[in-house]
Formats: sequence, C-alpha cells, structure tokens
Amino acid sequence: MITGIHHVGVAVADLDESIELYSSAFGAKLVHRARSETDGLEAAFIHTGTGEIELLGATSPDSPVGKFLAKRGPGLHHVAYGVTNIAQALADARSAGLELIDSKPRMGMHGALIAFVHPKSLGGVLTEFVEI
Amino acid sequence: MITGIHHVGVAVADLDESIELYSSAFGAKLVHRARSETDGLEAAFIHTGTGEIELLGATSPDSPVGKFLAKRGPGLHHVAYGVTNIAQALADARSAGLELIDSKPRMGMHGALIAFVHPKSLGGVLTEFVEI
Repeated sequence: MITGIHHVGVAVADLDESIELYSSAFGAKLVHRARSETDGLEAAFIHTGTGEIELLGATSPDSPVGKFLAKRGPGLHHVAYGVTNIAQALADARSAGLELIDSKPRMGMHGALIAFVHPKSLGGVLTEFVEI
Repeated sequence: MITGIHHVGVAVADLDESIELYSSAFGAKLVHRARSETDGLEAAFIHTGTGEIELLGATSPDSPVGKFLAKRGPGLHHVAYGVTNIAQALADARSAGLELIDSKPRMGMHGALIAFVHPKSLGGVLTEFVEI
C-alpha cells in the first residue's frame, strides 16, 4: 500500500552548492549524505519542513544521473512513494502492466529497500518505491 | 515557514488516461478536477496515500503546460511546498535572491493562494508555494 510521497529526487550540477541553496532559500536541513561508487552517485537528503528532497549529483558522466544531466540538465529527476510492503508493491505494479527497472527490491541509500519503475510506464515520470 | 511537500505537478499528454493509470497502478483517488481557460490548463488532483499529485493537461499548445509538453514531453513539472504565510515566503525567497514568477500570491486551482519561483533560481526546478 502506498502511504504517500516519500521524497522527490532532484538532479543537480553541484551538490554542495545545491545544499547551500536549499538551506539559504528554504531553511532546509541536511539529514544524510551518501556516496555510491557503483551508481556513480553522491546524494544528499534534505528536509524542507516535513518534506524530503534527495539532491543527486553524478560522480561520473557515464552514471545514470550523469547521463540525465547531459540530456536534460539539472531539475526534477524522480518521485518516490513510501510503501508498507515493497514486494507487494512491485507485484501490484507488474500486474498493472508497469515496466520495472528493479524486478527485486534492493538496498537504497536511505538504508531502506527501494525499487524503481520505468518512466515509460508512467507518463515520463521515473518512480521509486521505498519500503517504510 | 515551509511545512513540507504539498504536491508534485506532472505534465501529461492525456488527462483522463493519466487519472486512469494512477488509479489502476497505485490506487490513486481523484479528489478535484478543474479547468482554467486563462492558463490553458486542465488539472486533476489525485491522492496516492497522503501524497498529492497534480496532473496537468494543456487545453492549448500555446499555454505554459502546452509549451512544456512540446519542449520536454510528459513528466515531472513542478514541486509545491506548503507554507504558513505565502507573503512572507515570497519575501524570504526574494531576500535569498530567487527570481519570482509571481511577485504576488494569486488564487490557485486548489482554492488556496499560490505563487511560483522561477526554475532558473533553483537548479531547473519549477517551485510553487501553496498557503495552507
């Protein structure tokens, strides 16, 4: 079951500058920062009130976020929904005819199980499930 | 003060099909639908759990959403934050050096005061305030 919007992912050109921008403009607080060499990704999770934004910087131009930045420029990247049971959420998504990027849940940077649904299944919106 | 993420706006090619997709894939519920001839926009507000998505269809190719669709295709369009005092939020944004699209709050389709901040001020993210 989807509980609500868990976070919104934003691809950024410079992670430190973006953290500073959200902090000075919106009083956002940095809650977690992590780097994944496998994904070529450095991410910062910030809170604007109760809302969470995941700022996504590429550590390599060949990474998924690096390619996104090259093609579309910085901006909104994905929306993540909290789900109570990610295996069930993936089964439901498959039943509804959605194409999954992750056929099985994997450990995300939050320390929670995550999985992505392909944007072509959802009107161009890259969509993530996060088990909460 | 920003209270959290109020909703996420998604530009769609076909509003009815998109409502049906979110309903069948995620059990989303349609809570409000409205049309603005001035903005060349038809919008549907849907709830996925407690999360709100605003599906945005263009009623004219010359409208802001029509131009967005022509340039970028369907997908994530904006993120909206709830704020307790929108006049103060706009003053704070201006002080932080952000470029405002709406220098004054205006009535949005929610029946709440809204204002947009230009994406070029915020790393390509079109950002809205909604007074709650």
